[in-house]
Amino acid sequence: MADRLTDRSALEPLFAAGWALQTDRDAISKRYMFKNFVEAFGFMTRAALWAEKLDHHPEWSNVYKTVDVTLTTHDCDGLSALDVRLAQKMDQLAA
Amino acid sequence: MADRLTDRSALEPLFAAGWALQTDRDAISKRYMFKNFVEAFGFMTRAALWAEKLDHHPEWSNVYKTVDVTLTTHDCDGLSALDVRLAQKMDQLAA
Repeated sequence: MADRLTDRSALEPLFAAGWALQTDRDAISKRYMFKNFVEAFGFMTRAALWAEKLDHHPEWSNVYKTVDVTLTTHDCDGLSALDVRLAQKMDQLAA
Repeated sequence: MADRLTDRSALEPLFAAGWALQTDRDAISKRYMFKNFVEAFGFMTRAALWAEKLDHHPEWSNVYKTVDVTLTTHDCDGLSALDVRLAQKMDQLAA
């Protein structure tokens, strides 16, 4: 069971990296753009393996070379440390 | 360059299989439900390889064990034979 993030300073580096808080719920979102579908889905595949390993899964969509990701933790109805960790990992994988 | 589908009878078996026309554009959508994330993303991976092979890509989103797919052909601004083919293939892969 994940705890809701109380120290929000952990989000600051994510905002600097292009993540944004959603307006309607405690979740963060980011759009990744790649060169083409192979690069976009390659990113999703790497991220999927990490999501499964962390037992924490994104809400995401893909249209050709674009991947939109939203992270939140349903267990605690908001952002948790797991979202910060998965966001950091996704940024690494997309780099 | 794909031609827009004139003979719409090709869509009937897809409607019977759970695909539905979108109301706001000439596109078809279907929701696939799997046992868990591994099954859902496994389906997406198989479908992604076919999409790349057909050079025709879905608009799709995934939340844990749910995969929502929309197919349309941007080249012809509507449904083409490629959408029928990819829909059939996805149904096979999800079976």
